[in-house]
Amino acid sequence: MNDKGLLIVLSGPSGTGKGTIVKKLLEKNSTCLSVSMTTRTPRVGEEEGKSYFFVSRETFLEKVEQGKMLEYAEYNGNFYGTPREFVEQKSAAGQDVILEIEVQGALKVKSACPDAVMVFIMAPNMQELKNRLVMRKTEDEQTIQNRMNIAKRELEKADQYDYIVINDTVDKAAEDILAIIGAEKCSKKRREKFINEVKKQC
Amino acid sequence: MNDKGLLIVLSGPSGTGKGTIVKKLLEKNSTCLSVSMTTRTPRVGEEEGKSYFFVSRETFLEKVEQGKMLEYAEYNGNFYGTPREFVEQKSAAGQDVILEIEVQGALKVKSACPDAVMVFIMAPNMQELKNRLVMRKTEDEQTIQNRMNIAKRELEKADQYDYIVINDTVDKAAEDILAIIGAEKCSKKRREKFINEVKKQC
Repeated sequence: MNDKGLLIVLSGPSGTGKGTIVKKLLEKNSTCLSVSMTTRTPRVGEEEGKSYFFVSRETFLEKVEQGKMLEYAEYNGNFYGTPREFVEQKSAAGQDVILEIEVQGALKVKSACPDAVMVFIMAPNMQELKNRLVMRKTEDEQTIQNRMNIAKRELEKADQYDYIVINDTVDKAAEDILAIIGAEKCSKKRREKFINEVKKQC
Repeated sequence: MNDKGLLIVLSGPSGTGKGTIVKKLLEKNSTCLSVSMTTRTPRVGEEEGKSYFFVSRETFLEKVEQGKMLEYAEYNGNFYGTPREFVEQKSAAGQDVILEIEVQGALKVKSACPDAVMVFIMAPNMQELKNRLVMRKTEDEQTIQNRMNIAKRELEKADQYDYIVINDTVDKAAEDILAIIGAEKCSKKRREKFINEVKKQC
């Protein structure tokens, strides 16, 4: 019985440490990261199928029309999106796929894949979130204030997620997500096939 | 923020190895085992409050009337039940409580405590379940057949549980239950307090 892999959607406000958590998860677990598709030109060092799948605008829009994108959006004149095929192939092979994505995109993925495991990552409190943004030293005060305002709006969507992981330490947050993956595989809805098979043996 | 402990209800057919899994869990984790209340006479070596809470028939029935038992049943003229107070005290102190109980009792606990985490433990298949019952060498063929018939009826109730843990190896099953405990603590419904507190900080 080759169980399907999970699609784990991670999102949450900027500064909660999603990227670091994902790195830790990929080290610890046999999960893989979803690869996005884009119409932007590859930068030096970027690899096809690893950094992104690079396609033309025509190909991208064709895939959108054919329902082959779980979500997509346009930034600075380029399209970015999550191709359904990559996720489905990995999942069919029993591999768990992690998708790190902002909240609006995440909720679109949830509509397209109701079986996705939705994880909202948050700092322990708003002050800590601000501290982390300040510590980056990459954004000016106005940008940080903008990010904090976006964070407030994103928090309003937290109740549309299955789990809320508090990133106090990266290790604990990664451990929580691994626990979520383990628990979800035992969840009643994912054990239906097993229960039906056992009942047939009676 | 002192989070409440969880009530984890473990049940499943006889022979699935629930007892061994519970032992492993108590070794690995800061969980404690729920202590039952009974009207039967203590046996040599049994300790009040550890093996059971030993009470008179009158006291027991009084507690039932006052709604102080999560579930109870009568076997061989003695009452056995799960006192609500023990579970609630441990939970209030942030401690997770494990309750190992047969399926009918488990479903009563679920009605009394909708927040309980319901875990159904099963052998990998019916043949393996039978093998394990035979291996015990404590029951005759008729008793084993009866247990298998009960197992079939219990399997029909599996869909009323939140999780199905397959006890292939005890270590993996205990690990799955620890993952379930970790994941449940991150579940949206148990993070409501956190989310509301963070929203107030905005």
